Amino acid sequence: MPEPITGPRPTLEAVAARAGVSRATASRVVNGGAGVRAPLVDKVRRAVEELGYVPNHAARSLVTRRNGAVAVIIAEPEFRIFSDPFFEQQVRGISRELTAHDSQLVLLWVEGPGDHDRIARYLGGGHVDGALAFSLHNDDELPALIDRSRIPTVFGGRSRAGKDLAVPYVDCDNRGGAREAVRHLVSLGRRHIAHIAGPDDLMAALDRVDGYHDVLIDADPALTAQGDFTEESGARAMHELLERRPDLDGVFVSNDLMAAGALRVLAERGVRVPEDVAVVGFDDMASVVRSTVPALTTVHQDIEGMGRLMVKLLMRLLDESGGPAPASVITPTALVRRASA
Amino acid sequence: MPEPITGPRPTLEAVAARAGVSRATASRVVNGGAGVRAPLVDKVRRAVEELGYVPNHAARSLVTRRNGAVAVIIAEPEFRIFSDPFFEQQVRGISRELTAHDSQLVLLWVEGPGDHDRIARYLGGGHVDGALAFSLHNDDELPALIDRSRIPTVFGGRSRAGKDLAVPYVDCDNRGGAREAVRHLVSLGRRHIAHIAGPDDLMAALDRVDGYHDVLIDADPALTAQGDFTEESGARAMHELLERRPDLDGVFVSNDLMAAGALRVLAERGVRVPEDVAVVGFDDMASVVRSTVPALTTVHQDIEGMGRLMVKLLMRLLDESGGPAPASVITPTALVRRASA
Repeated sequence: MPEPITGPRPTLEAVAARAGVSRATASRVVNGGAGVRAPLVDKVRRAVEELGYVPNHAARSLVTRRNGAVAVIIAEPEFRIFSDPFFEQQVRGISRELTAHDSQLVLLWVEGPGDHDRIARYLGGGHVDGALAFSLHNDDELPALIDRSRIPTVFGGRSRAGKDLAVPYVDCDNRGGAREAVRHLVSLGRRHIAHIAGPDDLMAALDRVDGYHDVLIDADPALTAQGDFTEESGARAMHELLERRPDLDGVFVSNDLMAAGALRVLAERGVRVPEDVAVVGFDDMASVVRSTVPALTTVHQDIEGMGRLMVKLLMRLLDESGGPAPASVITPTALVRRASA
Repeated sequence: MPEPITGPRPTLEAVAARAGVSRATASRVVNGGAGVRAPLVDKVRRAVEELGYVPNHAARSLVTRRNGAVAVIIAEPEFRIFSDPFFEQQVRGISRELTAHDSQLVLLWVEGPGDHDRIARYLGGGHVDGALAFSLHNDDELPALIDRSRIPTVFGGRSRAGKDLAVPYVDCDNRGGAREAVRHLVSLGRRHIAHIAGPDDLMAALDRVDGYHDVLIDADPALTAQGDFTEESGARAMHELLERRPDLDGVFVSNDLMAAGALRVLAERGVRVPEDVAVVGFDDMASVVRSTVPALTTVHQDIEGMGRLMVKLLMRLLDESGGPAPASVITPTALVRRASA
């Protein structure tokens, strides 16, 4: 066995020479070894150990703190992440944009405060270059915890807990979109327009409530019922509203999944849509609006595009060439008219 | 400003003393800073910098290579991960067990060979203590790539590409379960039993085909059609089978999602289930079998439990106290009789 070598930090070229392989082969082994025959992998690994070589990516990471990985943190339990198509679309946009930047997406989720210590340790461990966090709830400690980790971060959507932090966000014009939905129902001559609201710890849901009240300043509180953005909760809220105000002739629902639940209840009760009750959703989620009967009129937001935009802002935060810090972005919404209103 | 201190590695106690805070506060700041007021966070951070303190978790990571994080790698595009409830259940089991070990789950997925270099770099970067990989396809380079990263790994399900690697796996008794499903159809007096198979690059699907042929040694090849484990593909395969063999009176379907698609087609064509055609699925996926009409007879496998078991095997691989390497595990299956057969 050759003698151990001491002196300056060994190069990849030295590893390749010691292992008797090309620099390209040594590089592939150091970067995971894909496509290299096992005996060569072993030779290179032995040379790495003998020389005490620090692989480029680890060295680069030590110097520039670049790990080539970005954490996507979703503040929801895993059953919601896997069942609400909103997350799939947002993650798809993020995934494509990160791939374009050759950065690995690692997905984490936070069910509640019991997970905070572990997440803080992970973020503090220097394993990711940046973080994208969404579905942040008001009065949640998570935004502050992410901010204190000092990892460059972009939020998806605003939250009361995040509003005093110097963290840029990407959000859609929830309030303006809601106004347009309700004005559309008014323009159809609807007189008793109800609202099925989302969870009251999510700013997106609260903004949509505000948009409803912008148009219907004196709306009867009995015309508002609350859900939690799941289809089941939309069905329950629709039942409630029909009990309280059987004269309602329009409903603006805070997301498409709840609208699908509301449409199901209306059909079961023999209420005709849109003749008796016109229904407008929010999101324009392809997998939902395609399958409702009748097809759902809704407020379109570009969920996948917002995911891509979050990555673009993050890449500007990571860019150390010294440009100005990126500002938050509010993306536009647009009413899409289909059969339900 | 106090003079920089040199000498042995500074302790957390030294940081706390220099910052003028309690050890507990210093510890919280070092671990992310959750719940500590900003001025104190700044004091502690300054002390950390001045002393050149290496936080415990980073020090532990340097010494033991423990990062407190485990990668879950799914070899499927993200739309399948988010739409097939199988992955949610498996990830749920993994997530709960990792939480019990205070280890952070980071989820990655691999759409194809284009992602391999990036994944190899990530796994080679020392960011995770271990990996759990599932939905591995035959002839895929991924298992070898993961193995070469030298990260302790457990596979979910067998694959041809993984079979020569010293990587333990957790799988269910796919072949035995399939035999039981088909025997049940035979015991109901069915004479022309078809099979809707899953993708032929997944061992689980191939094992279920083998189980079908174990019982029906001379089955007409026209009685087998192939899907890709999605509901749509199950519907397409059912159409095909009804064209080819309108006399079929039983179908064993390789997973519940495809069985749901098959039941939909049978209903559309006015074929009564189970009177005309009896149907048996595989998986016993709560979210699917609850919603089919009629309720689906199927082969139960404990998907969540298999996820937990994968973590337990991984923890034994990570345990350096020198016990024997864990062996692979095949978990039992059981037929669950409902209305469809």
